[in-house]
Amino acid sequence: MTGHVYGIGLGPGDPDLISVKAHRLLTSARHVAFFRKAGRPGQARRLADPLIPEDATEHPMEYPVTTEIPVSDPRYNEVLSAFYADCVARLTALTAMEEDVAVLCEGDPFFYGSFMHLYARLPREQVTVLPAITGMSAAWTATGQPVTWGDDVMTVLMGTLDADTLKRHMQAADALVIMKIGRNLPKIRKALRAAGRADEAWYVEYASMPEENAQPLSDLPEDHVAPYFSIVIVHGQGRRP
Amino acid sequence: MTGHVYGIGLGPGDPDLISVKAHRLLTSARHVAFFRKAGRPGQARRLADPLIPEDATEHPMEYPVTTEIPVSDPRYNEVLSAFYADCVARLTALTAMEEDVAVLCEGDPFFYGSFMHLYARLPREQVTVLPAITGMSAAWTATGQPVTWGDDVMTVLMGTLDADTLKRHMQAADALVIMKIGRNLPKIRKALRAAGRADEAWYVEYASMPEENAQPLSDLPEDHVAPYFSIVIVHGQGRRP
Repeated sequence: MTGHVYGIGLGPGDPDLISVKAHRLLTSARHVAFFRKAGRPGQARRLADPLIPEDATEHPMEYPVTTEIPVSDPRYNEVLSAFYADCVARLTALTAMEEDVAVLCEGDPFFYGSFMHLYARLPREQVTVLPAITGMSAAWTATGQPVTWGDDVMTVLMGTLDADTLKRHMQAADALVIMKIGRNLPKIRKALRAAGRADEAWYVEYASMPEENAQPLSDLPEDHVAPYFSIVIVHGQGRRP
Repeated sequence: MTGHVYGIGLGPGDPDLISVKAHRLLTSARHVAFFRKAGRPGQARRLADPLIPEDATEHPMEYPVTTEIPVSDPRYNEVLSAFYADCVARLTALTAMEEDVAVLCEGDPFFYGSFMHLYARLPREQVTVLPAITGMSAAWTATGQPVTWGDDVMTVLMGTLDADTLKRHMQAADALVIMKIGRNLPKIRKALRAAGRADEAWYVEYASMPEENAQPLSDLPEDHVAPYFSIVIVHGQGRRP
């Protein structure tokens, strides 16, 4: 007999948008684990705050590096690999004691999530992943317009890609979702302009959260500092009766 | 004073994967509206069955055509436009009597949903849209593998697109989601082969439902009849430590 690890998708931010199943698991959890940057409360922990039982034991997993080492440096992979192995050792120490652990995941765990690095290192039969509402679903809902109609092609892009790759995909798809905005915002704007899509783009931050703000990207000041929770949306214009 | 229309995303199928907010609205609804094909119970109605109060008044909205008229025929748009206008008249007759109406939407309402045709015709201030877990999130979760890592580019394609368009996008993206499978499955397979992606593809039907089945597409018999709830997934293989 061993315990179980639940990769719990928290959804986009509003605790009311978590699934009924995730809500039940989380509000009855004895052990709650989550990633965070050292010295910070952690985004996932903050989102789940209203749902974590007071008597649950918390297991923060603190990233040893975030932007201090460039991802191209071989040490980056080494340091992160060792970190994930250590996290898995902590989780399996709990499951060996027949304890279940809820691992908090922003958005949907299998969609650009960090949980996959633990999942890939855990015995498959000891893990259950709960899908969730993605941040992008909350973002296009916040724009008040459907993101895709009919046969629209939708492409999801990371703002960390180079400008030419961004431009090429921006031209090829009907609808676009661009994530990992942050310091990439000027590059994303430039690529959208080069692709002829800048005037259609919407900028959304804190989708589904109290600070939610959605506006045409062209209305956003050039020097705007995009927070962690920000997404750019270009709506498809497919067939509609 | 008028009532309100709620476009309620039901999620992928499992009633346990509906959001806490949608669950609350639906289980206390007095009026529930949903699309269906004439003579059928309706997919959305079936998914929501465990959650609809016994004393709620149900308002089926029956499509006048589905496949009887080709979408290229001008009459198709005419007939559908008149149908949506009639649905909106029924909903606004209820809101005029200060009644709220829950409109059932499979998946996420703003992601290839039919609700948008009502939304576009209703006064914006009388409608609230609840995002939900998409069918594709449940599908990639069912494969037991993350769909995207690192900077992967993900593209969503409708199986109704022509083979060349499918092939071009299948080659350009890292991760793929293909929806509207049905009778398009042979064409989708052919396009995946032409794009060199057939061996990576997974086929998922009834994701998150009791009949859930996920398998490599290459293991699926050539003459398999894909049900309404079926999705093809190709996982990205992006950077991972």
